[in-house]
Amino acid sequence: MALIVQKYGGTSVPDAERIKNVAQHIIDRRNGGDQLVVVVSAMGDTTDKLIKLAYQVTEPPSERELDALLSTGELVTSTLLTMALRHMGYEAISLSGAQAGIKTDANHSRARIVDIDPTRILRELEQGRIVIVAGFQGITDDMDVTTLGRGGSDTTAVALAASLKAAVCERYTDVEGIYTSDPHLVTEARRLREIGYEEMLELAAYGSKVMHPRAIELAGEFNVPILVASSFTDSPGTLIHGEVSMEVRNKMRSIAHDLDVAKIMVVGVPDRPGIAAVIFGPLAEAGISVDTIVQNASINNITDLTFTVTKSDLVKAMIVVEPIAMSIGARECVSDARLGTISIIGTGMQNTPGYAARMFSTLSKLGINIQLITTSEIRLTCIIEESRVKDAVRALHQAFQLDLEG
Amino acid sequence: MALIVQKYGGTSVPDAERIKNVAQHIIDRRNGGDQLVVVVSAMGDTTDKLIKLAYQVTEPPSERELDALLSTGELVTSTLLTMALRHMGYEAISLSGAQAGIKTDANHSRARIVDIDPTRILRELEQGRIVIVAGFQGITDDMDVTTLGRGGSDTTAVALAASLKAAVCERYTDVEGIYTSDPHLVTEARRLREIGYEEMLELAAYGSKVMHPRAIELAGEFNVPILVASSFTDSPGTLIHGEVSMEVRNKMRSIAHDLDVAKIMVVGVPDRPGIAAVIFGPLAEAGISVDTIVQNASINNITDLTFTVTKSDLVKAMIVVEPIAMSIGARECVSDARLGTISIIGTGMQNTPGYAARMFSTLSKLGINIQLITTSEIRLTCIIEESRVKDAVRALHQAFQLDLEG
Repeated sequence: MALIVQKYGGTSVPDAERIKNVAQHIIDRRNGGDQLVVVVSAMGDTTDKLIKLAYQVTEPPSERELDALLSTGELVTSTLLTMALRHMGYEAISLSGAQAGIKTDANHSRARIVDIDPTRILRELEQGRIVIVAGFQGITDDMDVTTLGRGGSDTTAVALAASLKAAVCERYTDVEGIYTSDPHLVTEARRLREIGYEEMLELAAYGSKVMHPRAIELAGEFNVPILVASSFTDSPGTLIHGEVSMEVRNKMRSIAHDLDVAKIMVVGVPDRPGIAAVIFGPLAEAGISVDTIVQNASINNITDLTFTVTKSDLVKAMIVVEPIAMSIGARECVSDARLGTISIIGTGMQNTPGYAARMFSTLSKLGINIQLITTSEIRLTCIIEESRVKDAVRALHQAFQLDLEG
Repeated sequence: MALIVQKYGGTSVPDAERIKNVAQHIIDRRNGGDQLVVVVSAMGDTTDKLIKLAYQVTEPPSERELDALLSTGELVTSTLLTMALRHMGYEAISLSGAQAGIKTDANHSRARIVDIDPTRILRELEQGRIVIVAGFQGITDDMDVTTLGRGGSDTTAVALAASLKAAVCERYTDVEGIYTSDPHLVTEARRLREIGYEEMLELAAYGSKVMHPRAIELAGEFNVPILVASSFTDSPGTLIHGEVSMEVRNKMRSIAHDLDVAKIMVVGVPDRPGIAAVIFGPLAEAGISVDTIVQNASINNITDLTFTVTKSDLVKAMIVVEPIAMSIGARECVSDARLGTISIIGTGMQNTPGYAARMFSTLSKLGINIQLITTSEIRLTCIIEESRVKDAVRALHQAFQLDLEG
């Protein structure tokens, strides 16, 4: 008998009928003899509806109040799912984040879990109950309700799995696992049977929307295996874990892409120490997240500084950057919102040469101009024109033979 | 500077726009310089929608889970109202029942408040905040969320007012106060400026839907004055309190009526000790509330037993009673669902004769047959045909000159 943490996303529980289906899915697992702790998200578009309601009253809403409001979405799902399980004859109990002992800091709307007190969960498990936990939420020392922000329910599930020393954290959604590329784009895209934490992190950071990097990072830190699978099919899914087999480690694993990329170039800046801080400090203060940063080699003490932001942040970023650029003597400040990234990812890149060359020649054959290149030990990313991203992904998938079983 | 507890019902907060109106109503009061604790119900038909959702999943839902589900309704209102107040420039904070320190027993769906720990509320008031409390809910020693059942949010407000020693509990809804009779039925019905706890209790028990008896009883016990008023108009409302002036105490105060009455007669029962227990024990176990009970004087050791239930309970009650009636040798068991009650209420009845005679003669003149009569010290109730109730209310209102200012 193992202890399993499961997590069901909002697309798995849009209405009463699908909640019953999830209950059956849980029961099938339970009948195998395991103890189950199940984390749920809010039903379908509940969170969006609550946010809309808040914005009808005020703009922007107080973060403390918005957290208390949004947390009700997960409470509704957890109680309904518990009712469904009991209806089917299984002992179950719902717990709010507070009841589940999920203690966070007081950073409303983006709280971090600081501790988990599993006393109540363990007591309920001992009594033979399936424990249904409202995801995405916790409580401060002062008994104020917080939400965990993006990737919140996944983070709840992984943190609980770590705290309870669960055998695995099973994460169910409407996708069947992690693919060699986006299956909507590349028809030959293949589901991966397993993937390491680092590869998965790069994938999440560079375009895969399947999981937020935060939960993957936490899982890696506590060595919690995550099974990503669909609650609608019997596909075995993808296991994200730390013991990926040797052979798999030597491969190129996947092609990620991201269409939400805009570029800002600060051109002709007199090169002196500290110009990066002068520009990126105010951007961070404005809550704008900067991805890739490239500074050209300086010629005659004049340099260019290029960086990327998401498209939705571009206008706000230009308002921050332009006056700064002028004040430090830059010649001009230009932007381009019609960009995208393609990334090849795999631990195999660490010890096998030739991957970069194959990527560049593939893009070259398609006549695609590479605007920026960034790398990590297990990733190579090119920024290209948005309109060529899809062609590039398909061509790279073929060039690296990702359709062949690894 | 006084401490005031206000309570706004669901009809006052059906949508974002009306929540803003309530916020303005609170601010107007706040600008008078008082400290405010505000209790809110769920928005409009939210509770009904959540119940419907639960019944789509299972029937009947677990009471613990249903409580956790329904409690979200009041959380939503309390956070939105807090946002609205902050939007208008006022410091405010929402508290769940748990955060407000409302401790209850573990009788889910009908919990009783056992204690209030006002520490958090007092701390927030000291910081100059308007405190918005989610009504209808509390928490057990085991941190489980409970709901208080019928009259729950009113009970929260009165209990908080008692605990905080508030000057008054102001209860806002869509009616302007307590009337001498139902103003929808009697056009001359007049708003009462004040009414005592006992009279208000009789009124609530015998037909007025304005307040549930439970909150009135609690208010009487702790001597909390309740102002019943409308959040939509500037009418001064009705004060329910313990110091009603002498002159008012000597009057007939109001005519209540109730159309939700059904009668069951167990006819020809051999009269022996314990037959009442044999019949009413099983009814109580089935959750059926019995109102009036009349046992006729026994003739030749044979008696008739008559009692009333609500119309919705009649079928269930007959299923319980009929086999019992047969087993104790009753001749037959008959029911009538086309009944109603009319009641005259006022502390003046205690020391002034002639009220009963005037009531009976008024009904007699209308040719109305009285089927049952019950009394308390300050109330006289007749059960009559449902079709004649409205005529009777109008005639009694006139006969007792309730349209004249008292």
